[in-house]
Amino acid sequence: MASQFATIGIFAKKHDDSVARTLTTLIDDLISRGKHVLLEASHPTERPDIGRCGHDELGAACDLVVVVGGDGTLLDAGRAVAASDTPLLGINLGRLGFMVDVLPADMKTTLDDVFAGRFIAESRLMIEVSLRRADGTLEEEMFTAINECVIRNQSFARVLDFDTYMNGDFISHHRADGMVVATPTGSTAYALSGGGPVLHPGLSALALVPICPHTLSDRPLIVDAHHEIEVTVASELDGAALFTTDGQLTHPLAASDSVLIKRSPHDLHLIHPPGYDYFNILRNKLQWGRGQQAPRV
Amino acid sequence: MASQFATIGIFAKKHDDSVARTLTTLIDDLISRGKHVLLEASHPTERPDIGRCGHDELGAACDLVVVVGGDGTLLDAGRAVAASDTPLLGINLGRLGFMVDVLPADMKTTLDDVFAGRFIAESRLMIEVSLRRADGTLEEEMFTAINECVIRNQSFARVLDFDTYMNGDFISHHRADGMVVATPTGSTAYALSGGGPVLHPGLSALALVPICPHTLSDRPLIVDAHHEIEVTVASELDGAALFTTDGQLTHPLAASDSVLIKRSPHDLHLIHPPGYDYFNILRNKLQWGRGQQAPRV
Amino acid sequence: MASQFATIGIFAKKHDDSVARTLTTLIDDLISRGKHVLLEASHPTERPDIGRCGHDELGAACDLVVVVGGDGTLLDAGRAVAASDTPLLGINLGRLGFMVDVLPADMKTTLDDVFAGRFIAESRLMIEVSLRRADGTLEEEMFTAINECVIRNQSFARVLDFDTYMNGDFISHHRADGMVVATPTGSTAYALSGGGPVLHPGLSALALVPICPHTLSDRPLIVDAHHEIEVTVASELDGAALFTTDGQLTHPLAASDSVLIKRSPHDLHLIHPPGYDYFNILRNKLQWGRGQQAPRV
Amino acid sequence: MASQFATIGIFAKKHDDSVARTLTTLIDDLISRGKHVLLEASHPTERPDIGRCGHDELGAACDLVVVVGGDGTLLDAGRAVAASDTPLLGINLGRLGFMVDVLPADMKTTLDDVFAGRFIAESRLMIEVSLRRADGTLEEEMFTAINECVIRNQSFARVLDFDTYMNGDFISHHRADGMVVATPTGSTAYALSGGGPVLHPGLSALALVPICPHTLSDRPLIVDAHHEIEVTVASELDGAALFTTDGQLTHPLAASDSVLIKRSPHDLHLIHPPGYDYFNILRNKLQWGRGQQAPRV
Repeated sequence: MASQFATIGIFAKKHDDSVARTLTTLIDDLISRGKHVLLEASHPTERPDIGRCGHDELGAACDLVVVVGGDGTLLDAGRAVAASDTPLLGINLGRLGFMVDVLPADMKTTLDDVFAGRFIAESRLMIEVSLRRADGTLEEEMFTAINECVIRNQSFARVLDFDTYMNGDFISHHRADGMVVATPTGSTAYALSGGGPVLHPGLSALALVPICPHTLSDRPLIVDAHHEIEVTVASELDGAALFTTDGQLTHPLAASDSVLIKRSPHDLHLIHPPGYDYFNILRNKLQWGRGQQAPRV
Repeated sequence: MASQFATIGIFAKKHDDSVARTLTTLIDDLISRGKHVLLEASHPTERPDIGRCGHDELGAACDLVVVVGGDGTLLDAGRAVAASDTPLLGINLGRLGFMVDVLPADMKTTLDDVFAGRFIAESRLMIEVSLRRADGTLEEEMFTAINECVIRNQSFARVLDFDTYMNGDFISHHRADGMVVATPTGSTAYALSGGGPVLHPGLSALALVPICPHTLSDRPLIVDAHHEIEVTVASELDGAALFTTDGQLTHPLAASDSVLIKRSPHDLHLIHPPGYDYFNILRNKLQWGRGQQAPRV
Repeated sequence: MASQFATIGIFAKKHDDSVARTLTTLIDDLISRGKHVLLEASHPTERPDIGRCGHDELGAACDLVVVVGGDGTLLDAGRAVAASDTPLLGINLGRLGFMVDVLPADMKTTLDDVFAGRFIAESRLMIEVSLRRADGTLEEEMFTAINECVIRNQSFARVLDFDTYMNGDFISHHRADGMVVATPTGSTAYALSGGGPVLHPGLSALALVPICPHTLSDRPLIVDAHHEIEVTVASELDGAALFTTDGQLTHPLAASDSVLIKRSPHDLHLIHPPGYDYFNILRNKLQWGRGQQAPRV
Repeated sequence: MASQFATIGIFAKKHDDSVARTLTTLIDDLISRGKHVLLEASHPTERPDIGRCGHDELGAACDLVVVVGGDGTLLDAGRAVAASDTPLLGINLGRLGFMVDVLPADMKTTLDDVFAGRFIAESRLMIEVSLRRADGTLEEEMFTAINECVIRNQSFARVLDFDTYMNGDFISHHRADGMVVATPTGSTAYALSGGGPVLHPGLSALALVPICPHTLSDRPLIVDAHHEIEVTVASELDGAALFTTDGQLTHPLAASDSVLIKRSPHDLHLIHPPGYDYFNILRNKLQWGRGQQAPRV
C-alpha cells in the first residue's frame, strides 16, 4: 500500500504569503522522497524541478492531492478532483480546519506515516445540483458541492416563497430568506449558522435548514441522502432569487424554477493522519466546554 | 394477503370516556368480519363475544393490533408488542396523531382497505437502553423505547455534568439539564421542544439533543443509528440524576453510571391507510405555513 | 375629546382590488359624519367629494390618518406622518395585522367609538438611522424606521465582519450575514425570524439580533432604547454590504462605514378600538397554543 | 467619599480551600488599613482580630461587603444584604465571574482604588416573588431573587400546563417544562441556556423564557420590569410543580397556585474596579469571537 502514492498533486491557496514557506518545504520533502510532483497550473512558481497540471486534470493525473490552505481551499480542490476519486490530504496554515487537519509542524511526520500506509481514509458524501426550468427543461450543467446548496432571495428585504419536495412528495411551503440543503460535511458550515444540527460525517443524510423562516415551527429536517430533494421557487418572485453551491458559484433563478439536489455518485476521499478524531476537531472548532455562563448557584 | 390478519388485538386508552363509543363500533365491525378479537386484559369490558389477552402476550397472540387512543397509547402498545414484530394500526380520538392516523369516522373504510390488503406498511427503528454501573456491572434489565431516552438532573436547579461517547469514542463533556437521545419517531416529541431537528422516519439515525446546555455551542448531533451511544454521568453528582424511556419509565442514576443506547433488533411496524403522507401529518401537527409575523412589507 | 378629529387623512394600499370596496365605504362613512377627508395624493380616485394631500404633508394636514391595508401599508404611512405626531388608525383587509387591527366588518362601530372618544391610544418608539462615512463625515440624510434597521452582506455567500458599539463602548466583533437592530414593534417582524425575542411594545428597548452568526454564542442582546447603537463594517469588505430600514429603503455601505441608530424624538401614535389587547393579537399571529407535537405521555 | 467604607463585612464561599489564602490576605489588608472587619458568622476562622456578624445582619452592620468566591456566593450575599442597600465588591477565585470581577492578584490595587473613592457603582434590579394559593390566599413569606424565578414540573416527563399574566392581563397558555422569569443579571444564567437573549444590566426589564415549550412559536418575551408577572399552574397538575429562586430555594406548588413576580423596591448595589466593562466580561464569558466553524469558502 505504501507504494500507491507515486504522483502527488499540490493544490495551494493563492494570494497568501503564509502558504509559500509551507509549500517550499512540502515540495522539497516530496522530491526527496522521489515522488513525481505536479503543482496546480494556475499557482505561480519558479521551481523547475516540478511539473504542472491543469486544475481539472489534477485528479486524473495524481494518486494523491495535497492541499495547502484552509477548508475553503480544500472545497475547491475537492470539487476539482471529484470525478476521479483521488484522495486529498489537507495541510492547514497554522489553524486547524475541519478537513485540513495537519499542522505545518507535523507535515513531515504525517507524510512519513501516509507514505508508509499509516493513515485513516474517510469518504464524505457530496451532492449534485441541477436546475429545472419552469417549462420542465433540465439544464445540462450540473454542479457538485461538498458542503451545501443554498437557495435564497437576493435581497433579504423581500421574503422568498418556495416549496420543497422529497422524491416528488410535497414537504412544505416555506416563506423565508432561503433554504440550505447541506451534506454532513456542510452541516458545520453555513447550515450551523442557520440553526441546523451537526451531522456526523459517517451519516448518509442531508439537512434541510430554512434561513430566517417566517413560520417559527419551520424547523430543520434531516432526510436520508438517497432521496432527491427539490426546491421550487414561487411562480411570482418578489425580488430576485438565486442558488449557490459551496458558497462559491452563484446562479440566478427565475419564477417557478426548481433546484434539484441528489447525492453524487462520487464521494470526497480524505486522508487523515493516524490518530484522527472527528469529535476532537469538532470540540476544538466549536469551543465545546469552554464558554461559561453565570453559575446557577 | 387479505387473509393474513385473522386474530386482531385491541389496545385502548383507559379512563377516557370518548374511547368507549369508538371501541364498541370497532369490536362490532371486527366481529361482523369474522375476526377473532382479543381485548387487552386490563381494559374493562362487559362483552362476552370477545376474548381477552394479557398486555405482554398481545403481540404473540395476534396478527394485528388496533390501538384506540393517542400517540401515547400507541407508544405503550408498541413497546408491549415490540418483540413479536406484530403490526399496529392506530385510531385516534378525533385529533390526528403522528402515529394514530385514522379518524374514527374513517375507521370502517380503513378496515375495508386493510383487510383487503390495501395499506402502507412502515417500519420505525426503536432503541434498547441498558445501564452500566460505575463498577462496570451491566444491569440485566433492558428497556425498549420508541421515542427517546432522556438522561437528566432530577432538580433543574443543579446542572448535570456528563460525558457522551459513540462506540466508545469520546464525543464531549456536557453541562446541561440533560440529554435526549431520540429516534426519528421521537424527534417530533421531546427532542423538538429541546431544539432538535425533525428526522424523517425513513432515516436510520439518532438525535443527541442537549437540554438547556450551559455551553451555547453544544448543539444537537445526529449520528447513524447503528452506533452505540453512551452517556456517563459525573463521578460527583450535584443532586440526583435519572433516565427515562418514552417519558414513562424512570430510573435513578448513581455517580459514574452509564446509560447505553443502541438500536433495537426489532422495529416498530405501523400499518397506515392508503394515502398516508408523513409530511402532511407533519405540516398539520407543526402548523407549518399558518403562523404569521408582521409583514416585512 | 370627540371633536378633536375634524380632518381625516386616508392612506390606502395600492394595486390591491380588495382595498377599493373598503375605501368607498370608509369615505362614505366619514363624509356622512361631516368630516373633512383628504386622500393621499398618489392614490387613484374618481370621487370629487374628497380632497387630496401629498404623501409627506398628510401628517401636518390631518388630525387622524386612517390606514387601509396591511402592516406594511401602516409602516409606510407611519414614516410619512412621523414628524407630525398625527395618530393612525389601521383597518386591515380581512386578516388581522399587528398594527392594522380593525376588521372591515367592524369599521363603522370602531369609527363610532373613536369619534366619541372611546379608544386606546398607544405610542410606539421609532428609530433614526444615519450613516457616518469612514472618514468621519456624517451623511445629512437621516432615515426613520418603525420596525428595524438591518445591516448586512449583499451576497450571503460572503460573511460580513462588523463591530458593534453602545454609546461608543465596544460591544463585540461579529462574523455573520448581518445584524438587525429592532424596535419593540419590529421585534415580531424580521428580528423574530432571526431568533430574537418578542419585546412588549411598552418597553423602551432595542433588540440587536445577529443574522446567521458564525459564532454560536453570538446571541441577541437587548438594550435600553436611549442608548445609541453603532454598527461599523470591516475595513476590508469581502463582497458588498448595505443597510435597510423597515425592509423598504436600501443603501450601500463602503468599508469602515458606520450605521448609527438612536431613538427618534418622535413616537408612532396608534389609535386602537376599545378592547384592544396586544397579547391577544400576539397569540393570534404566532398561533400560540395551537401547534402540537407528539405527546410525551 | 473615601471615608464612607469604615466597617467592612466579608462573605466567603465555604468548603473551598482556595478561598482560605485569599481570605487571609484580604483580612490582613483591611486591618492594616484600619478597617473594622466583620466576617459572616458561619464561616470558620481562628482569627481573634476580627469581629463576627450574622448572615442576615451583615448588610445593616457594614458599609461595604466584600465577597470572596464565585457568582453563586455573590448571589447568596446579595440576597442577605438586599434590604440594607449595602454595596458589594466581588473577588473571584482565579476565574472571572459576571459579578465577582476582581482577580485575587488585583485585590490590593482594587482596594486602594475603592477606599480612595475610585470605583464604578452599579445598581442591578432584583425581583420579589410571592405565592398566591388557589383560594386567593397570599402567603406571607416573600422571596428576593437576583437572577431569576423558575416555575416548572418536578419530573420533566410530565409537561406542565400554566398561564401567564402581566398586570392581570392574560399573556398566554403554555405547555412546557417550565418558565424562567429572569432579571437582566439572570439573563446570562439559566435563561440563556433556555434560549433567552442577553439583557443589558442597565435595562429595566424582565425576560419570560419558556423551557422546552411544546409550541415552537412560544418564544421569549421581554417586558418592562415595572409590570407584575403572574404564572398560574393548571387546575389539574399531571405530576408535581415547584418554583425556585436563584436556583437555591425551592417550594412546591399545588394546582391553581400562582407565582407573583415583581420588581423589588431594593436594588443590588455592586462596586466595580475602575475600568469595569460589562461587554468585556460578556465577551470573555461567552467566548464571543473565538468559536469557529468551517469556512463558507
